[in-house]
Amino acid sequence: MTRRTLDDLDAHRLLNGGPVALITTRWRTSSDVMPAIWHTPLSRVPPLLGVVVHPSRHTHDMMRFSEQFALNFPARDLLNHTHYFGMVSGRDVGKLELSKLATFGASKIDVPLLANCVAWVECVLEDTHRLGDHTLFIGRIVAVQADKEAFDETWLADDPAYRPVHYLGVDRYATLGERLTPELRTSDDGAIELHETTAEREEREEHEAIDRERRERDPEAPPA
Amino acid sequence: MTRRTLDDLDAHRLLNGGPVALITTRWRTSSDVMPAIWHTPLSRVPPLLGVVVHPSRHTHDMMRFSEQFALNFPARDLLNHTHYFGMVSGRDVGKLELSKLATFGASKIDVPLLANCVAWVECVLEDTHRLGDHTLFIGRIVAVQADKEAFDETWLADDPAYRPVHYLGVDRYATLGERLTPELRTSDDGAIELHETTAEREEREEHEAIDRERRERDPEAPPA
Repeated sequence: MTRRTLDDLDAHRLLNGGPVALITTRWRTSSDVMPAIWHTPLSRVPPLLGVVVHPSRHTHDMMRFSEQFALNFPARDLLNHTHYFGMVSGRDVGKLELSKLATFGASKIDVPLLANCVAWVECVLEDTHRLGDHTLFIGRIVAVQADKEAFDETWLADDPAYRPVHYLGVDRYATLGERLTPELRTSDDGAIELHETTAEREEREEHEAIDRERRERDPEAPPA
Repeated sequence: MTRRTLDDLDAHRLLNGGPVALITTRWRTSSDVMPAIWHTPLSRVPPLLGVVVHPSRHTHDMMRFSEQFALNFPARDLLNHTHYFGMVSGRDVGKLELSKLATFGASKIDVPLLANCVAWVECVLEDTHRLGDHTLFIGRIVAVQADKEAFDETWLADDPAYRPVHYLGVDRYATLGERLTPELRTSDDGAIELHETTAEREEREEHEAIDRERRERDPEAPPA
């Protein structure tokens, strides 16, 4: 595991794809952890992100009182911990202590970070908005770190042990699997060809296959 | 494809896992479409969601003037369209017309929905907040539909053609692959056993394997 310090704006790309974040907090002598999936980047300059938390949550008070919090991104080996952290309240149980998970100190704020995660974002609380029955916590991003096996410019979604975890609802989680890359085809005059029906695609692929075969038989042949 | 009408709160679960949403808008005689990944549920009662849009975006004005918008969730066959819709501005190009994608009318608002998507959320604009250099659009969810091949209580992430698309950054996209289910093990006295080191897991798995083998040899043997 190699932890690297990244640019503040990389925090936005860590939220891309919508992974679960474990929110860690510390207030006076107590600490807490809660999984959050209601989060989004909010602004590039200044670098802001939002986390939406219900007022009944212990983490809600911890964030409000301490005015700082961290996002820790778990991979699959923390799946059970992640689910458990969402089931019990830090008001009743010292979740972080009970879990015996190793922590290390954040670089810019006084909040424990989870050593077994694959990326970390440190925030100081900028503002809060009560929206409906939840509170939007607006955090100013002050430090970002990621494991280079997990994230390099974007989530790599490569080695299964280093993919972030996504929560679908109920007790269903998943990781990103197949990588996709868009291919914008252009017509002869340079216009982007967007629309291709299934029939058109099949026809094109058939032509390409015939051409490929022809050139394999005769490498000197010009493209069709 | 079977489109089903869902509960308003299912919109929150459609945002779970962090898929790309294509925001469609209509204002007077013009319509537009833009991919958005900066989105999050905001409240259960009333059912609210937030979409974060830069003021330079044409969609920003379209949402502000029309006070309504829809989220359309594309699967892989709209990958190229999705990427293209993020590259050009609706101010310069009639993206929706150019794409020749089939649309159908929303049920509660006057906005076109993209027929080739796998889920749809209709919103009326409740409020906006300028946060840093972007605007948070707060939408009240008024109608939700999803293809039953794609979503049943949660995203199914089953048939590859019906998985939503996730954007990682640059030109990298991915779909959810492996499904994971947490298993909370309990000790003899019912306490949740959270912490299991690699050595402990290996020891447990070895014991389980030995036990399995023993019982395969002698099916009458009691569990160890």
